[in-house]
Amino acid sequence: MTEPRTAAIRYALEHRNRFLEDLITFSSIPSVSTDPAHQEDMHKAASWVADKLRQLGASQVKIYPTAGHPVVYGELGEAGPGATTVLVYGHYDVQPAEPLELWKSDPFTPSIRGENIYARGVSDMKAQVLVTMHAVEALKDKGRLPVNLKFLYEGEEEIGSPNLGLFITGHKELLAADFALNLDAGMIAEDVPCISYGLRGLAYFELNVYGPSHDLHSGIYGGVVHNPAQALCELVAGMHDAQERVSLPGFYDKVRPLEAEERGELGRLPMDEAFYLKQTGAPALWGEQGYSPVERTGARPTLEVNGLLSGFTGEGSKTVLPAKAMAKISMRLVPDQDPAEVHRQLLQYLEEKAPQDIRWEVINLAGGVPSISERNLPAVQAFSRALEKVWGTRPAFKREGGSVPVVAQMQELLGIESVLSGFSLLDDNAHGPNEKLHLPTWYRGIDTVVHFLCNLQP
Amino acid sequence: MTEPRTAAIRYALEHRNRFLEDLITFSSIPSVSTDPAHQEDMHKAASWVADKLRQLGASQVKIYPTAGHPVVYGELGEAGPGATTVLVYGHYDVQPAEPLELWKSDPFTPSIRGENIYARGVSDMKAQVLVTMHAVEALKDKGRLPVNLKFLYEGEEEIGSPNLGLFITGHKELLAADFALNLDAGMIAEDVPCISYGLRGLAYFELNVYGPSHDLHSGIYGGVVHNPAQALCELVAGMHDAQERVSLPGFYDKVRPLEAEERGELGRLPMDEAFYLKQTGAPALWGEQGYSPVERTGARPTLEVNGLLSGFTGEGSKTVLPAKAMAKISMRLVPDQDPAEVHRQLLQYLEEKAPQDIRWEVINLAGGVPSISERNLPAVQAFSRALEKVWGTRPAFKREGGSVPVVAQMQELLGIESVLSGFSLLDDNAHGPNEKLHLPTWYRGIDTVVHFLCNLQP
Repeated sequence: MTEPRTAAIRYALEHRNRFLEDLITFSSIPSVSTDPAHQEDMHKAASWVADKLRQLGASQVKIYPTAGHPVVYGELGEAGPGATTVLVYGHYDVQPAEPLELWKSDPFTPSIRGENIYARGVSDMKAQVLVTMHAVEALKDKGRLPVNLKFLYEGEEEIGSPNLGLFITGHKELLAADFALNLDAGMIAEDVPCISYGLRGLAYFELNVYGPSHDLHSGIYGGVVHNPAQALCELVAGMHDAQERVSLPGFYDKVRPLEAEERGELGRLPMDEAFYLKQTGAPALWGEQGYSPVERTGARPTLEVNGLLSGFTGEGSKTVLPAKAMAKISMRLVPDQDPAEVHRQLLQYLEEKAPQDIRWEVINLAGGVPSISERNLPAVQAFSRALEKVWGTRPAFKREGGSVPVVAQMQELLGIESVLSGFSLLDDNAHGPNEKLHLPTWYRGIDTVVHFLCNLQP
Repeated sequence: MTEPRTAAIRYALEHRNRFLEDLITFSSIPSVSTDPAHQEDMHKAASWVADKLRQLGASQVKIYPTAGHPVVYGELGEAGPGATTVLVYGHYDVQPAEPLELWKSDPFTPSIRGENIYARGVSDMKAQVLVTMHAVEALKDKGRLPVNLKFLYEGEEEIGSPNLGLFITGHKELLAADFALNLDAGMIAEDVPCISYGLRGLAYFELNVYGPSHDLHSGIYGGVVHNPAQALCELVAGMHDAQERVSLPGFYDKVRPLEAEERGELGRLPMDEAFYLKQTGAPALWGEQGYSPVERTGARPTLEVNGLLSGFTGEGSKTVLPAKAMAKISMRLVPDQDPAEVHRQLLQYLEEKAPQDIRWEVINLAGGVPSISERNLPAVQAFSRALEKVWGTRPAFKREGGSVPVVAQMQELLGIESVLSGFSLLDDNAHGPNEKLHLPTWYRGIDTVVHFLCNLQP
C-alpha cells in the first residue's frame, strides 16, 4: 500500500486540470470588498467557498453574517479528539482592479499566459485558499485526514478585517484550535520558499483639505487663498524628514529595535538593492536611512500616499482653484506600534502643522496591529520540513511587509500562533494591475500542504 | 424725433425676452474647447454666432478654420470710411463643467432662479458676446450705426488661444481697426462697474512624476521606493517659500514693481480682506507677504495647483503604491513676465529639486502674455462715460487677475489697444460649478454698449 502522502500527491497531479478549473471559477467572481457595488458578488464568493467545503465533506458549514461581509465556516473532525486541530484561515475578498486600462486581460476573466494565470485576487489569495482545499481533497481520497481542520474564511481582509475580531470573540469555542494556518503570505521567488514570522500592521486614512467654499477661478482669486491642493501637498511633504523617516510626533517611540542577530538573518535573504530595483522598476531606491531595503519593507514602519485627488484632472487645461483636495494615506506598522495610537499621531501632526487658512478632516478607513511570532513552534517546523521536501531547499524566514491583522487577532483572542506562509510570488502584482499566479509554484504548494498535514501526525 | 440712443435703449427694454431666449439658446451649446468630445458642439456654436452676425446684417461673415477651433468673423461698415472702426472681440468657447455633481441644475440647460441665470459659460462669456450684438440690433432698428464694427470671435480662449495669433497675423488688413472692444473682463459687484487696464498672463503645465514601473503593493514595497505621489507633493510644496512667494528660480526678476500711485488707486477699490473672505468662503486669506489681496490677485504673479491625481481615489481603502502622480500647475503672470521664460524656470526648478529616484516630465498646455494698457485713451474714456451714465457712478479702474491673451496679441500684432470691461460679476462662479449671470446687470450692459457706441461719434 502506498504511503498516504505519496498517494495524495499523485492524486493532486492527476487532478490539476480540475483544480485549475476551480481556481478559474473562483477568480471570476469580482469579490471586491471595498466597493458597495460588489455586494452581490461578495455573497456569491462566500456561497462558492461554503459549497467547496461541503464538497470536501465538511460539517457545520455555515455563512455567518457580520456587520460587513459574511464569514464562512466549516470543519473536518475525522481525526478525532486526540489529534491536532488546525484552524485554516483565508479570505475570499480581493482588492479593486482599477486602473482597468492597465490590465492586459479582463481582471475577472482569468487568462492563462505561459506559466501564469492572470486575474484580480488570483494570487491574493484565492489560489492560496484553494491550496489547502485541494490538499485536503487529495488526502481524503485514499483515507482519513491525519488532523482535524477548521476552516475560517472572511470577506474583509482587503479592507482591514473590521468585523473579524468581533466574530472571533463571539465564537471562541467553535474556533478553538492548536494553531492557525495562514497562507496569505508569500515567497520571494519561485526557488525561495518562505515562512513569515513578522507582519506589519496597517493604519489607513483619508485626509481631506478644504479651502474656499466652492471652486474658484484661478485668475480672479489666485493669490488670496491657500490653495487646498497646495496645502495638502505641503502637509504630505512634511510627513517625512530629510532622513526619509516618518515625522509624525512619536511615530517611532514604540518601534521594537531590530536585534543584531535578526539583522544578520534578514541580510542573508536574496533581497538586495538590485533585487528591489528589478522588482519595482524604479530609477533608484529610497527609504529610511540606516536600514537595508529588506529591513525597511519588513521590520520598519512606513507611510505611503495611496491616492491623491483634487480639482481638474481631465485632458487639457482648466484654470480652477479647487475647493477641496484629498489624499489616501496609510502607514505600515511594526511591533509594538498601534493603529489607534498612529491615528492620534496623525491628528496631532495636523493640529500642529495645518495652517489656519484651511480646514481638514481625517477619516479612519482601516487598521490592523502588527505582529511577530515564534519561529520554533512545532507547527512552523512541520511546515518548514514540508517546504524543504518539495523545494529541496530550506525555507527563508522573513518578516512580511504587508499586513494580515488576523494573525495578531488570533494571538490575542484565541491564544494561538499562526503558521504564516503561502505560494504567491513577490512579482505577482498583488494589488496592482495584471495580478498573476505562477501555476507550477501553486501546484508545488498543494504538495507542500499535503506534506505539512502529514508531518503534523504524532 | 427721439435721440438714437434713447430709441435704442427703449428697443432693448422691449426686446429683453427675445434677448434672453438668444442667451438660453447660445448657452445650451456645450462648447467646451478643451474636450475633444465636444468638437461637434464647437462647430455648432461657431455656426450659431455666424448666423447671429448675418441676422444683424453683417457682411463678410465667415467661419475661418484654424489648426484648432474656428474663428468667426463679420463686419458692419455702414458708418463709412471716415468713421471710427471698432474690433469687437469675444470667445464662444467655455470651460469644462466638471465636477458635474456640484451643479444644482444641468450646466447646459440654462436655468433661471431669482435674478440670475445658471449655465456653464453664460457669464464667461456668452452673455458678454450677446451684449454687443443686442446693442447693435437696438441701434440699427431706428437708423445707422455711428461707427464701423468688425466682429472677431474665437473658440480657444479657455485653452489659451493657441491659434488666434496666427489668424490675426494672417488677417491684419481684415482686422484693421482703431481699437478693440473686449467684454471678457468684469465687475466687482453689481453697483461697481469696472474698466480693466491690466491683465495677468498665463502659463499652464501638467507635471507628471513617475516612480516604479507599475503600481506596487504598499505593504510589500512600502519603504524602498520614493512614492511618486509623495515626491510630487514635495515638489509642489517647494514651489512656494515661507513668505508665500513663488520659489521658481528668477520668477520675480521681470515683474514690474507696483508704483505708489497705482497702489493707492488699487487700495481704493471696494475689495478688502472682508470682501475676499466673503467671496471665497475660505477660513482665512493667504498670499504673498507685503501685498494687499487686490494687489495679489491683479498685480502680482501667482502659482496655483489646478489639479492632482494619483493612485486610488475611489471609496474605501486600497493599499497601492502608485506608479505615477500628476499635477496641473499654472502661473498667472504680470508684466513683464513671459510664459516661455516661466516654462524654463519651472524646468530649472525641477532639474535642481527633483530627486534622482523619480522621473518627471512637464507638458506645456497653455500660455498667454500679461498686458497693461493706457487708461486715458479716448475709447476708454467713452466707455467710462457710458458706464457712468447707466450706473450713475464712475467706474473703478482695476487690474484683472485673469488672463485674456488676445489683449496683448492685439497690441503686438495689430498695434491697437483694447477697451476691456464686461458685465460679469466677481461672484458669477466663472470656471466653477453653478456659473451664473446677473440678468439686471446684463440688461444694463446692453444699454452701456449703446451709450458707448454713440459716445464714439465725433
